[in-house]
Amino acid sequence: MTMKLFKTLLPAAALVALPAMGMAQEAAAPTMDEVGPYIFTTLLFLMAGFLVFFMAAGFAMLEAGLVRSKNVAMQLTKNIALFSIAAIMYWLIGFNTMYPGDFNGFFALGGQTVLDAVGVAPEDAALDYASVGSDFFFQLVFVAATASIVSGAVAERIKLWPFLAFVVVLTGIMYPISGSWKWGGGWLDAMGFSDFAGSTVVHSVGGWAALAGVIILGPRLGKYGKDGKVNPIPGSNLALATLGTFILWLGWFGFNGGSQLAMGTVGDVSDVSRIFANTNMAAAAGAVTALILTQLLYKKVDLTMVLNGALAGLVSITAEPLAPTLFGALWIGGIGGVIVVFAVPFLDKLKIDDVVGAIPVHLFAGIWGTIAVIFYGEANLITQLIGIAAYGAFTFVGAMILWTILKATVGIRVSEEEEINGLDMAELGMEAYPEFSKG
Amino acid sequence: MTMKLFKTLLPAAALVALPAMGMAQEAAAPTMDEVGPYIFTTLLFLMAGFLVFFMAAGFAMLEAGLVRSKNVAMQLTKNIALFSIAAIMYWLIGFNTMYPGDFNGFFALGGQTVLDAVGVAPEDAALDYASVGSDFFFQLVFVAATASIVSGAVAERIKLWPFLAFVVVLTGIMYPISGSWKWGGGWLDAMGFSDFAGSTVVHSVGGWAALAGVIILGPRLGKYGKDGKVNPIPGSNLALATLGTFILWLGWFGFNGGSQLAMGTVGDVSDVSRIFANTNMAAAAGAVTALILTQLLYKKVDLTMVLNGALAGLVSITAEPLAPTLFGALWIGGIGGVIVVFAVPFLDKLKIDDVVGAIPVHLFAGIWGTIAVIFYGEANLITQLIGIAAYGAFTFVGAMILWTILKATVGIRVSEEEEINGLDMAELGMEAYPEFSKG
Amino acid sequence: MTMKLFKTLLPAAALVALPAMGMAQEAAAPTMDEVGPYIFTTLLFLMAGFLVFFMAAGFAMLEAGLVRSKNVAMQLTKNIALFSIAAIMYWLIGFNTMYPGDFNGFFALGGQTVLDAVGVAPEDAALDYASVGSDFFFQLVFVAATASIVSGAVAERIKLWPFLAFVVVLTGIMYPISGSWKWGGGWLDAMGFSDFAGSTVVHSVGGWAALAGVIILGPRLGKYGKDGKVNPIPGSNLALATLGTFILWLGWFGFNGGSQLAMGTVGDVSDVSRIFANTNMAAAAGAVTALILTQLLYKKVDLTMVLNGALAGLVSITAEPLAPTLFGALWIGGIGGVIVVFAVPFLDKLKIDDVVGAIPVHLFAGIWGTIAVIFYGEANLITQLIGIAAYGAFTFVGAMILWTILKATVGIRVSEEEEINGLDMAELGMEAYPEFSKG
Repeated sequence: MTMKLFKTLLPAAALVALPAMGMAQEAAAPTMDEVGPYIFTTLLFLMAGFLVFFMAAGFAMLEAGLVRSKNVAMQLTKNIALFSIAAIMYWLIGFNTMYPGDFNGFFALGGQTVLDAVGVAPEDAALDYASVGSDFFFQLVFVAATASIVSGAVAERIKLWPFLAFVVVLTGIMYPISGSWKWGGGWLDAMGFSDFAGSTVVHSVGGWAALAGVIILGPRLGKYGKDGKVNPIPGSNLALATLGTFILWLGWFGFNGGSQLAMGTVGDVSDVSRIFANTNMAAAAGAVTALILTQLLYKKVDLTMVLNGALAGLVSITAEPLAPTLFGALWIGGIGGVIVVFAVPFLDKLKIDDVVGAIPVHLFAGIWGTIAVIFYGEANLITQLIGIAAYGAFTFVGAMILWTILKATVGIRVSEEEEINGLDMAELGMEAYPEFSKG
Repeated sequence: MTMKLFKTLLPAAALVALPAMGMAQEAAAPTMDEVGPYIFTTLLFLMAGFLVFFMAAGFAMLEAGLVRSKNVAMQLTKNIALFSIAAIMYWLIGFNTMYPGDFNGFFALGGQTVLDAVGVAPEDAALDYASVGSDFFFQLVFVAATASIVSGAVAERIKLWPFLAFVVVLTGIMYPISGSWKWGGGWLDAMGFSDFAGSTVVHSVGGWAALAGVIILGPRLGKYGKDGKVNPIPGSNLALATLGTFILWLGWFGFNGGSQLAMGTVGDVSDVSRIFANTNMAAAAGAVTALILTQLLYKKVDLTMVLNGALAGLVSITAEPLAPTLFGALWIGGIGGVIVVFAVPFLDKLKIDDVVGAIPVHLFAGIWGTIAVIFYGEANLITQLIGIAAYGAFTFVGAMILWTILKATVGIRVSEEEEINGLDMAELGMEAYPEFSKG
Repeated sequence: MTMKLFKTLLPAAALVALPAMGMAQEAAAPTMDEVGPYIFTTLLFLMAGFLVFFMAAGFAMLEAGLVRSKNVAMQLTKNIALFSIAAIMYWLIGFNTMYPGDFNGFFALGGQTVLDAVGVAPEDAALDYASVGSDFFFQLVFVAATASIVSGAVAERIKLWPFLAFVVVLTGIMYPISGSWKWGGGWLDAMGFSDFAGSTVVHSVGGWAALAGVIILGPRLGKYGKDGKVNPIPGSNLALATLGTFILWLGWFGFNGGSQLAMGTVGDVSDVSRIFANTNMAAAAGAVTALILTQLLYKKVDLTMVLNGALAGLVSITAEPLAPTLFGALWIGGIGGVIVVFAVPFLDKLKIDDVVGAIPVHLFAGIWGTIAVIFYGEANLITQLIGIAAYGAFTFVGAMILWTILKATVGIRVSEEEEINGLDMAELGMEAYPEFSKG
């Protein structure tokens, strides 16, 4: 059909359908009905993508605030480096390994990401989805979150380069492979496993990798006394930690909202809205729960618990931020807060030294969130547990092997003297706050 | 009408109206002409909403930077807690109390917010407006701003839990009731009172509640000498305070821009653009005015005044960010800056100890902004003054009663010893910067 | 044509074209095909604009983190003041000087910016572009970046008011004039000079102005020993510097993405996506390159180099963020990182004391990025070099004259004693961190 022919036959209707106000329009120019959804969804990915990108700053500030000042520069270095490495690895092989198209459901090694051509024509674009660039960008910023989770847990004693080597494998290979099982349309997706925005695919994967690292590394010097006493090691800057938490909360609107993967219809944009509202509610509930619980248990509110409570609420709602009512988001997120308050001392009892609380927040609340899907979403418990176990087994075992190899070859832990003096001077030769004397 | 019938009768026209490029389309799928405005406006609420959400971080950083380091952790705790409580209370009763639909114009108690169904069909959606979830989210982040204003003023001597109790009532009941008078279509709206984005409805309400709190609490120890001398108590971290100001400025684009409540037409999106430009200009003018004035008055520029000058400019333009020209925004915002520079020492003269300058910025500039509407918008002075007085009387009296009850029952102020040692150790048992020794 | 007439003649077609779901529609209401692109592009400017706005906070944090604590309050003051001044000057004359419409290609003095009318009708709007307000806002936030670049280089010894006087001229006159040569459709644009988002127009212009300032000012006391030794002067807060870098990286998605200047077609929104992906890749590559290079050269990773590496990657891709493949972005950005690592010590050898590394990042990488266009974009080397030279000559000479005049009249440098005591106490009478004792 050409516009010209149509004009001849039905001039009045053509006037309605055509731009009447001075825009030159070529024959067969696509209409907004045809391309509007593509533009909206691409825009969703760009907007959600920059929000999730900013979570890199959130993790950096959270972790910089929760380590001692002698390790702050190192923590900052790790965070900007891991994001950058993730960006390169995910382009090189990660993205197409995670989204291989038709594959055996378990593994297909992908090649470099190729973007749409400049000024791609509508007939060459995926009009029922979004531009490749926006999709790649959106998925890319997710993988960095996984690596950031590890970074926080293993802080204050790990060497820089072995950590970065781990990040190369995690972001380029491990995360993309296991990610393909669900989001790439692999075997767990076929089985009906449900994980909307990644309580398991992203957060618990980061948590398992972190847990393996923390076990292989061992606790920080002086964290656990010989008498079984747990020595608190307070973070150096709770203002930064709070800022980091707020930035993560902000980024989570993109994390969960963008995972709707569509914004061009009434139903889709309304769903994105539901997700925003639910995500916010779960975070609020996690924070309030931790606030009240720490008051009841310890007679004093613990700010770091409140921060981690909010984050645990966010992780908890991530597997299913769409289907629950606001009340559902409230109690799902609230339980996330409960988990954090009890899991942090529990890990300490096991002498598992997770500096920032990444394992309670991302692994435990991630598991909880994945289970909670059964209450509102379309999922059954067995399948959810199979998915949780599969991601856990693959990531934990893979990470254990990788950490062990790194430990046996290059070594992963700084010397006692370096740990005492701080990683900043030992590994970087600089301090984050050189002018502020230590108390 | 069904698409099918139409196709039979007028095939050529149908081809124009239908997507021609390979998208499966069900019969009677709505066109972009029908649903585009809904999608755009919902998107506006989501985008503006996450910007305003981030203001929670802005307030937290501003306040954490302007209190002494011994009270920083407490200030951070209050900020994340108040946002979380506001989110829950506004869902529970606030939103529907503020937007009750048809009501007596003064008060109607609302119930829980219920979102649109998942994947809501166009015929069930408010196509002339936006999704419930996006609207709820956008309104929700406003109420938290009100509570943040109070938090800054009463800092450094208020107990945590009584403050949070106040927040429960403010965000769940007081703000929604008075908000319904204007934005819910109540009596002040009927009278023609004009307040586009909340110079009065949000900012002066927060300011009145803060003023009541500060009066009931009394000034910090040592702030006012017996000889009438005002002792400056400098903030501990002006970098954070500046960061907070920039974040608030950023968030204000959402605060004012989103209040257009529509983005799906040429006129609406252009109006949002006007609002962005005007909002930015007013902030700039407020900052420059404070910069110049403090140089002239004190022979030295005062950074905290410049920060508060920018914020006062923002509050000033909030009642009418659309109608003024850029020059209008310049002088309206500039007067906001003047107000701050003179109001801060004026309050000190009255021994009203507002830690962060919240009352000058939000109450005084809020009143000014509400009056300034008469120069560009459609409003008359008398109506504006009635509105200002009504919000002032209701909020100030209500807050005085509430603060007084809290004082008489649980007490609202920490002991002298706790205040001297800092609220962080007294109420939380932790420090924000444990490693940095105090000068 | 009226809708009414049309309805009478062709009722069935009218039913297709008209909203069928309860939206009142006036006669001749424009269709989404007519206005959709305008709305999308305006939205692009608003979204990209607030991202670029936030770069003001990024620069402020980066610079506050890289100066000594005794100069932090001053650096913060300069940053919020320069943004505010830029906003006013760009409205007063800058915007219309930069975009004068038809002009001689070299210079036309513009007047105040006038926004679209409130609720502008489609027939009065630039339907093939975007709203004036959004365009103005987007362009405005660019000019502030230029001034921020200068601010960082001349830190720790320049007086406040002479610096601000320089900003008035730079943002109101110099930047807009030279900007008109390319982006205003002037002589360099006619010649085919290519600079998509401002490697030269924004970044190297800032860099040249900074270079002139640094030369006229001379180095900080104690930076260069008499024996040729370079004394490192570490920044006071690397957490803030890292935060600033992440904020700038975030803002760059708007900086480059918004420079597509259109989002209403499949090709345009996909191009914006390419730009996001490429921009991210270049930053990552710059950071990783600096990470590896500093390890190889100095046996220790240098965090500030990594931060500046990321920024140099961003500047490098800014002249052509669209045309390169992701691999192109990788190597172009990576060379940016190389430039920084070698340029910083090179400048020190010349005793050019650039406090934050602004000249390597913005000038050198800006030149590199402008040259790199020839590998992917439509540009030839000679034209690119002419452009680089023209901007360099105009800005450097203009800035030298301006700095010299300021030096000869009001003086631009604080006294030795003031420099030693810090600009905060000398010029502001306040400290950024008054409670933290200096080590």
